[in-house]
Amino acid sequence: LPQHPRLRIGPGDDAAVLSMTGLDDCVVTVDLLTDHVDFELAEVDPRRVGRKALAVNLSDLAAMASRPLAAVVAVALPRQGGQEIAVGLVEGMLPLAEKYQLAMAGGDTNSWDGPLVVSVTLLGALTARGPLRRSGARPGDRILVSGSFGGSILGKHLDFEPRVREALLLHERYDLHAGIDASDGLSTDLAHLAEESGCGAVVQREAVPISPAAGQLAARLADGSTPLDHALGDGEDFELILAVSPGEAEKILADQPLGVPLAAIGQFIPEPGLWQRQGDGPRQPLVPSGWEHRFR
Amino acid sequence: LPQHPRLRIGPGDDAAVLSMTGLDDCVVTVDLLTDHVDFELAEVDPRRVGRKALAVNLSDLAAMASRPLAAVVAVALPRQGGQEIAVGLVEGMLPLAEKYQLAMAGGDTNSWDGPLVVSVTLLGALTARGPLRRSGARPGDRILVSGSFGGSILGKHLDFEPRVREALLLHERYDLHAGIDASDGLSTDLAHLAEESGCGAVVQREAVPISPAAGQLAARLADGSTPLDHALGDGEDFELILAVSPGEAEKILADQPLGVPLAAIGQFIPEPGLWQRQGDGPRQPLVPSGWEHRFR
Repeated sequence: LPQHPRLRIGPGDDAAVLSMTGLDDCVVTVDLLTDHVDFELAEVDPRRVGRKALAVNLSDLAAMASRPLAAVVAVALPRQGGQEIAVGLVEGMLPLAEKYQLAMAGGDTNSWDGPLVVSVTLLGALTARGPLRRSGARPGDRILVSGSFGGSILGKHLDFEPRVREALLLHERYDLHAGIDASDGLSTDLAHLAEESGCGAVVQREAVPISPAAGQLAARLADGSTPLDHALGDGEDFELILAVSPGEAEKILADQPLGVPLAAIGQFIPEPGLWQRQGDGPRQPLVPSGWEHRFR
Repeated sequence: LPQHPRLRIGPGDDAAVLSMTGLDDCVVTVDLLTDHVDFELAEVDPRRVGRKALAVNLSDLAAMASRPLAAVVAVALPRQGGQEIAVGLVEGMLPLAEKYQLAMAGGDTNSWDGPLVVSVTLLGALTARGPLRRSGARPGDRILVSGSFGGSILGKHLDFEPRVREALLLHERYDLHAGIDASDGLSTDLAHLAEESGCGAVVQREAVPISPAAGQLAARLADGSTPLDHALGDGEDFELILAVSPGEAEKILADQPLGVPLAAIGQFIPEPGLWQRQGDGPRQPLVPSGWEHRFR
């Protein structure tokens, strides 16, 4: 693993030690990925799995508008081929770690008779603007999103670019009220954001940026689902969902300061709940249709 | 989850935010536990599993002589009964978190068709004395250990007390050269310590503190293994193994400053490798016999 200026003690001791000089706060997030749920190891290169395991956590740091600092990785490897899988996972993580100047601080390697499990914990640092919360949206705020949505199962869920730089740039230049990353699904995560902010949200259906993959998936499934259904419900888009004032939204949309497009897809309202509207039509309930872990 | 003075943003947002005011460094460690390897969920209360998952990480912080700060927990829960298991895990963690003033900062909850997986990441803070490393043992240093060893599978591996306070007290009052916690086995972890320090170690066989459980296990197995074999090889004792100068060892042994006994069990030598000796007998190789993750 590469050196890193903040890594006082790297892998090989009982724990890693990271320099916190100049940092008032530490942002912490963890995401655990499992075979058959978050990826199919039989069908993908372990490097893509390693990359995804790191990227989903980077996406969480992006959603807080925080800078990546360090990662620790814990794995449960299948005994059959475990060593090769471990090498692949790390090889998939390293380019992303380098890109985001992330210290790979260490981890825990286990073997077992079960499927592959990868747990990544990321530490981040806040900028002078502080954290971007889920709870700051106000009625009247516009809903802005980066990129496009739907059909990520066809590939984007493994190879997406976490919106770290985009979030930091927007947070620095504009007054963002609230933000979340779309991991569980546009509708589900928008509902989370609205709920945490104590308000509701209306999605303007025709304004939702639909990815080509959403159309491909709808065509392939041929189950009556529309591309928009997939954009609203599929999940794992890992795009930003933001709340900004109408004036700030206008500025951002005029500037288009990112390499990826930003679009306004509706607004927050005082009434709780998630709603949708087509054109100037009546407001109707929108049932969040994203990913939820289910128990029997 | 309880509040904590360092927790600026707790569970419920995309990440937690922890105040680092007054801290120059952050110690980070992760341990992932799996059903059938680290515990048998069918046979134990999930609370003991949760407690162990936190305690093994606290033991790593102890081995660095660092103060616990915060924990994040990621779980893969079996769909069958997952919700009750999750509650049990947290209930098992909370008393230990309170005891060590640990902020429960959040986590990631997943369900799947596999066995229970619990991954805990702990953050800690160094004291003014800095970290206790594995690499500081010098030839001539005495090997000190806390508590007794062997047979932990009979219960201690779930209910042990991590030696956090003991390590902090010793590190503050005495000049410790190196330290590690005995998780993989006394012989294996002592070999790690010696190797990281670039020296060897000789264990004085009659000086090793053997736990009653080691004797019980040897009797139960009746496979020719002795209680000492179990003390040297079983693992999961989570006691401290320390390197200190002969003079400092004498002081510590005379003071016995802990609630748990400290014993000298040998010394470090210039020649690499792990050795054993009975009384004044000849030095013979000691093959580390602890836990290693195996791949096929």
